[in-house]
Amino acid sequence: MRRRRLKIKPLREKHGEDTMDVRSKGFATHTTVETSLNKLLDKIEVKDEKEVVVLLDAVNRVLAEDIVSERNVPHFNRAAMDGYAVRAEDTFGASPDSPLLLKVTDKIEIGEKRQARIEKGEAVRIATGAAMPEGSNAVVMIEYTIRLNDMVEIYRAVTPAENVSLTGEDVKIGEKILEKGTILQPQDIGMLAALGRTSVEVFKKPVVAVLSTGDELVNPEKRPESGEIVDVNRFSVISALKLLGCDVIDCGICRDDKQKIEEKVIKELKNADMLIVSGGTSVGERDLLPEIIKKLGEIVVHGVAIKPGMPVALAVVSSKPVILLPGFPVAALVAFYNFVPPILEKMLNACIWQKYYVKARASKRIPSREGIRTFTRVIIKKTVEGYIAEPIRTSGSGILSSMVKAHGFAIIPEDSEGVEEGDEIDVLILRSMGCFHA
Amino acid sequence: MRRRRLKIKPLREKHGEDTMDVRSKGFATHTTVETSLNKLLDKIEVKDEKEVVVLLDAVNRVLAEDIVSERNVPHFNRAAMDGYAVRAEDTFGASPDSPLLLKVTDKIEIGEKRQARIEKGEAVRIATGAAMPEGSNAVVMIEYTIRLNDMVEIYRAVTPAENVSLTGEDVKIGEKILEKGTILQPQDIGMLAALGRTSVEVFKKPVVAVLSTGDELVNPEKRPESGEIVDVNRFSVISALKLLGCDVIDCGICRDDKQKIEEKVIKELKNADMLIVSGGTSVGERDLLPEIIKKLGEIVVHGVAIKPGMPVALAVVSSKPVILLPGFPVAALVAFYNFVPPILEKMLNACIWQKYYVKARASKRIPSREGIRTFTRVIIKKTVEGYIAEPIRTSGSGILSSMVKAHGFAIIPEDSEGVEEGDEIDVLILRSMGCFHA
Repeated sequence: MRRRRLKIKPLREKHGEDTMDVRSKGFATHTTVETSLNKLLDKIEVKDEKEVVVLLDAVNRVLAEDIVSERNVPHFNRAAMDGYAVRAEDTFGASPDSPLLLKVTDKIEIGEKRQARIEKGEAVRIATGAAMPEGSNAVVMIEYTIRLNDMVEIYRAVTPAENVSLTGEDVKIGEKILEKGTILQPQDIGMLAALGRTSVEVFKKPVVAVLSTGDELVNPEKRPESGEIVDVNRFSVISALKLLGCDVIDCGICRDDKQKIEEKVIKELKNADMLIVSGGTSVGERDLLPEIIKKLGEIVVHGVAIKPGMPVALAVVSSKPVILLPGFPVAALVAFYNFVPPILEKMLNACIWQKYYVKARASKRIPSREGIRTFTRVIIKKTVEGYIAEPIRTSGSGILSSMVKAHGFAIIPEDSEGVEEGDEIDVLILRSMGCFHA
Repeated sequence: MRRRRLKIKPLREKHGEDTMDVRSKGFATHTTVETSLNKLLDKIEVKDEKEVVVLLDAVNRVLAEDIVSERNVPHFNRAAMDGYAVRAEDTFGASPDSPLLLKVTDKIEIGEKRQARIEKGEAVRIATGAAMPEGSNAVVMIEYTIRLNDMVEIYRAVTPAENVSLTGEDVKIGEKILEKGTILQPQDIGMLAALGRTSVEVFKKPVVAVLSTGDELVNPEKRPESGEIVDVNRFSVISALKLLGCDVIDCGICRDDKQKIEEKVIKELKNADMLIVSGGTSVGERDLLPEIIKKLGEIVVHGVAIKPGMPVALAVVSSKPVILLPGFPVAALVAFYNFVPPILEKMLNACIWQKYYVKARASKRIPSREGIRTFTRVIIKKTVEGYIAEPIRTSGSGILSSMVKAHGFAIIPEDSEGVEEGDEIDVLILRSMGCFHA
């Protein structure tokens, strides 16, 4: 078949009368995903804008400062057990058979600010978490004592610091406890509270503008007439960006009008850190975007060795990334997941996308072309022998329902001509399945 | 050692003078995690409150309606390729060696609403995505044609429906495309747009009230004096709840005052679906919570065979779950992750927590007690032979920094007395590490 096409193509060029839209075709070469991404990432700068947020708004944000503790945690010696605060040396020799007797001089509850103290031969009744009295250095657990009015029998010797949380045991003054670039998790927020922080400096969320282009597109509120298509990509792409923690500018739909699209691109890039445009990315007459972007900036890659998603273009305008996604909804999302998260991560200098892969065995042969990274929609089934990935029958990258039904994409790498039934493949999970056991 | 404690305990009870706080001790029995959870879940009802949100706010929300399509997608026969719309039967016999000639009567762009039509022996130039003319049933790809003024040479036969996206090919009228209980992902939001939805019914987010109790607790803005402790758990727990998609009521800190705590519990449970209290959950005098909760409702389990986190109590007040977390920050989070997400999932009848486990080999022996599910903080290292889990040296469940440094918890199950170096263990990941490859 390929031979025939070669035979026919020159004829067509000679006639040269046909100037209509030729989507997904006509690319001289396809750059690999890796090369494409690296070429673009080389041109993207780390975004260094910071903002201060209150602690309870900081979870999952990217820390923009190193956190060095200005205090000890705990900041006083605390009893780690209920019992009696003692001088450890006063208990030496105590045992169940020969208890020692100490005088109980005080009782310290948790939260009491008063500084108690003990002398030789004395003990102070103490609650877990309470401040150790001055002069004491260990706690005898309540289980190893018997109280007799103002005296206490000690049935077990303790060593210095036994059952005591020492000052700075958790965090010491001057210790670097969290690093710039950390995605703040609940335990980090707790730690920041412990360190006395009520707010924290984080990197600003990337602002991403999302635009759809195409004379055929209508918004979902309009019942589409024959020839019209509801704009799907803007909705899925904005949702995906929200999951990645971005602020999103919804730029709506723009007709296939060169002037209007150009104005829109210039305007939106003033406010956004990145622009994602869907539709109009191929090489035919109606695919205006590449031409407009070439005029305003630089197209770094156009046509990637990825399926679906081949017509994707990666560009830079005013030092900001501009991603031209193909119009077909599955192709758009495949291109999105391959390029957008790594760009955001470069901007934030942090790992914001928890990619979730499982290894699974193909339930049947999955064909792919050598040199192309292929993303096949699959359903994952759990069996006693591990995961099985079952490709979804679909007629192309326009079939969004196949992606709604799928659990993820099986990824067939470039060096393969497909996998056979039973072969192990990597599946990128794009739908919560509860608990995956790696 | 256990023998000695048994010997001493009765004595202590006989004297009966000691009524101070005895934390983490004094539980007659510990219920297993699984039994505890099941006992509580049995008493929790699915929360059936719904709300309508606009489509772009619906990602990651739990769908509260079955989505049955009221339209076909696509809703007209669309050209799937650039080329010529034809009657397939007119191309039969066409080949590179013997092309057939058809008359070009029209040209249809994408987005054109006008309904073209063709007769026998005619072809219409058509763009990908454009509406097929009436009377046509296939597209000959542009590569297999040569245009000659108002005629086109066809070099390849097509079969009916070839290169056409048929009406309803993606979604058919009446098809159930998304089920109640689905966590809406970007592809689902795109699908809802395609179906003409501008809003969608989702389950309301669970509202969780979070209260800390303890005379020793202060807020982070106050520099703690000796004996005072910054309230850490409220901050980590609220942050974790936000990651789980909850609405949170921050109830602040309550002193150890029975009357005040009781009033607070009653008040907050009026507005919340669940109450989480940290501190004051053990069995000593100052642990007021169990007593208060017993008066207001039912304590289902108090004392779970889990380490850290043993003193956790699971209760129900006014048919709403009340979780009493231990005061130590690591214990609080371990208890939280074991019980709170499953409760939320029961309430929402959906799987909201994407638990993330990896299998790793223990870098050294990790001890644990048989019958207790043990959570050991570990750092994960990636090696060519897989993941290695390295336990973090720590002196107890009060050491929050150990959890800040950890990547997750190695889980030592109840039927084990610890694992040896090199043994395979499950690690629950609690910090984004970028890409985990299962």
